Amino acid sequence: MKLSNRVNNLSYSAIRKLGPYADAAKKAGKKVIHMNIGAPDVPTPREFLESIHKLDMETVGYAKAVGIDELREGISSYFTKQGNPYAPEEICVTNGASEALLFALWMTTDVGDQILTTDPYYTNYDSFFVETGTSVNTFPTSIENGFRLPDYGVMEAAVTPETKAILICNPGNPTGALYSEEEIRSVARLAVEKNLFILADEIYREFVYDGRKFFSFSQIEGIEDRLIVLDSISKRFSACGARIGAILSKNEELMAAAFKLATARLAAPLLEQYGTAALYTMENDYLQKVNEEYQQRRDCIYNALSQLPGVTCYKSEGAFYTIAQLPVADTDDFAIWLLENYEEAGTTVMVAPAAGFYKDAERGRQQIRLAFAVNQENIMRGIEILGNGILAYNQIQK
Amino acid sequence: MKLSNRVNNLSYSAIRKLGPYADAAKKAGKKVIHMNIGAPDVPTPREFLESIHKLDMETVGYAKAVGIDELREGISSYFTKQGNPYAPEEICVTNGASEALLFALWMTTDVGDQILTTDPYYTNYDSFFVETGTSVNTFPTSIENGFRLPDYGVMEAAVTPETKAILICNPGNPTGALYSEEEIRSVARLAVEKNLFILADEIYREFVYDGRKFFSFSQIEGIEDRLIVLDSISKRFSACGARIGAILSKNEELMAAAFKLATARLAAPLLEQYGTAALYTMENDYLQKVNEEYQQRRDCIYNALSQLPGVTCYKSEGAFYTIAQLPVADTDDFAIWLLENYEEAGTTVMVAPAAGFYKDAERGRQQIRLAFAVNQENIMRGIEILGNGILAYNQIQK
Repeated sequence: MKLSNRVNNLSYSAIRKLGPYADAAKKAGKKVIHMNIGAPDVPTPREFLESIHKLDMETVGYAKAVGIDELREGISSYFTKQGNPYAPEEICVTNGASEALLFALWMTTDVGDQILTTDPYYTNYDSFFVETGTSVNTFPTSIENGFRLPDYGVMEAAVTPETKAILICNPGNPTGALYSEEEIRSVARLAVEKNLFILADEIYREFVYDGRKFFSFSQIEGIEDRLIVLDSISKRFSACGARIGAILSKNEELMAAAFKLATARLAAPLLEQYGTAALYTMENDYLQKVNEEYQQRRDCIYNALSQLPGVTCYKSEGAFYTIAQLPVADTDDFAIWLLENYEEAGTTVMVAPAAGFYKDAERGRQQIRLAFAVNQENIMRGIEILGNGILAYNQIQK
Repeated sequence: MKLSNRVNNLSYSAIRKLGPYADAAKKAGKKVIHMNIGAPDVPTPREFLESIHKLDMETVGYAKAVGIDELREGISSYFTKQGNPYAPEEICVTNGASEALLFALWMTTDVGDQILTTDPYYTNYDSFFVETGTSVNTFPTSIENGFRLPDYGVMEAAVTPETKAILICNPGNPTGALYSEEEIRSVARLAVEKNLFILADEIYREFVYDGRKFFSFSQIEGIEDRLIVLDSISKRFSACGARIGAILSKNEELMAAAFKLATARLAAPLLEQYGTAALYTMENDYLQKVNEEYQQRRDCIYNALSQLPGVTCYKSEGAFYTIAQLPVADTDDFAIWLLENYEEAGTTVMVAPAAGFYKDAERGRQQIRLAFAVNQENIMRGIEILGNGILAYNQIQK
């Protein structure tokens, strides 16, 4: 039976495609430090499970399609406290930011339309582009200039007649870049002049370092009608397993469309919605503590990588990713080799080859993305193994 | 800002489009008996919440993209016990049967392809057809002949060069029909001869009445490669809020594609997966008890409807729906009138006009779909109000 072209066009995620090699390594008894994926080991606030443990209901019925009232109010109050007020009716709860992006693409594009974003960009976006029949165009950002957004003219030149939306991940996955107010305003200007929707993936908004301040598209007046914010609690509250995200917009027609899409799939999971609603009523310094923890991890990984000979390393300003340029010819091959052929005292490290994050894969051939979502001990050990691994690998290549 | 054509083409679900009228009725102080939607009031087994209440984990991390091992094993053992063995690796856990259908459409069709199904069919399918850029063709079934599948030739004539899959809901939503082994084998023959995938929506498989036996496509040899079973625990365990479904297939290439789709959206919700896994280890007669309960409700609604003058009523063989033909010109108008203008001692009833379930809406203009997912007391009261409502409504129309 012939499967569809679209599903055959789906590629394996750059983050997970080496999974089978990692599984084999574990089966062979190796310990694998996962620096390939942003799956944080930070504890989820106790309030999440505790509030679910208190739930009693005879029948676990459908939640409202757009989310339970308590959660929409919680999200509303969180954004309002951050200076980006959204009313509950401007919020639709989704199955993670993944579904929020899918909804946003369905609402803003037809088959054959195009999305504009940065190069490199979050590899999972590709699956959603394929699923929705859209294509992607990019403008380059590079490790050499700290992944800054290019000049207005460079971004403008990448807009085609098919471009319907610009998708910006800030703080950035996979780069760890935090865009300045000036850069964000430049994107907003482009959206206005070219009549594009703005898809703002700001799920890492809590994670900015060195005293920097996050600047949201929501702070810009005059773009309310074209702005769609994609949100998720996965990283904010270290609760990736909950699959609770949201789509936020002040465009009433768009939110009415989101309601139709939400109704079609009936609802998001009920228990995690209650758990998440409880998180938004916490009055403690959890988010600040977590920010401090990630800043320490960022320092840790940056210092460790900086000492490796031949390695160029970006000092992340936000999120929990960094891109490193390695003195190896092909990080795809190297990353597999680390899993298959290398270990130190029974342990190896898994990294995400960066080629899969670039539209032009060659640009990322010597780079890897590292997630510092694991604790400092694992980061130190992981980077040590990486450094020794580079030496051993290059020795063999000679 | 102009939204996409595809999202503008989405219609409101026939089941939920009268929601605003129901909300207004409730705001005005009326009690509304919901016979429009299959949201069961049967208790979820205690094991579901109890097993979740026992969960303790420091970090609520991602589940495996295809589902946690315990749940895939649970689903496997359930199907195996039913005589339809599927191995855990032939199962991918999804966000309800909704996502299972979305995955199935992405995997079997490209934009412009066609799905063949019965007329009438489950209205929510339409949203997924629009989302995936597919169209639908149908062959007629009718209340007059008990919603039987038509002769082979009639089904065959509805296949076009664009048809890639045949989608069958059995037991049927919205009809309550249960297809015989002969009917199911006739569909399988068509799929083989026309080289179609079979999308088997069998989520109501537990709910068959009068001692009938459910016959699954999985029991037919020789179609393993083209068969995709869509599953959900929503109705089986009265846990619609959990959003746990699954896609099952013995086609290895297709399951590899499902893995890619599952990975793209990262995971299904973690807690409900544990809760559902516990349901599959229960050793009690919950499912049999629930079947008996629904059979009583079916008897109750059939007897009550049969006594209404001018009403033709189908005696459901399965699921918890029935279609009734009313002596009114337009059930859309009548259903709104019931919510807006009618009440008995402060109570009214909400029904789903059937036009929205038919490809040719005119065929359902005088019909409604009723769900007997509510208890007998509400069924009796609801049908009483419906009957008196018909009389009062027709009085006004004169």
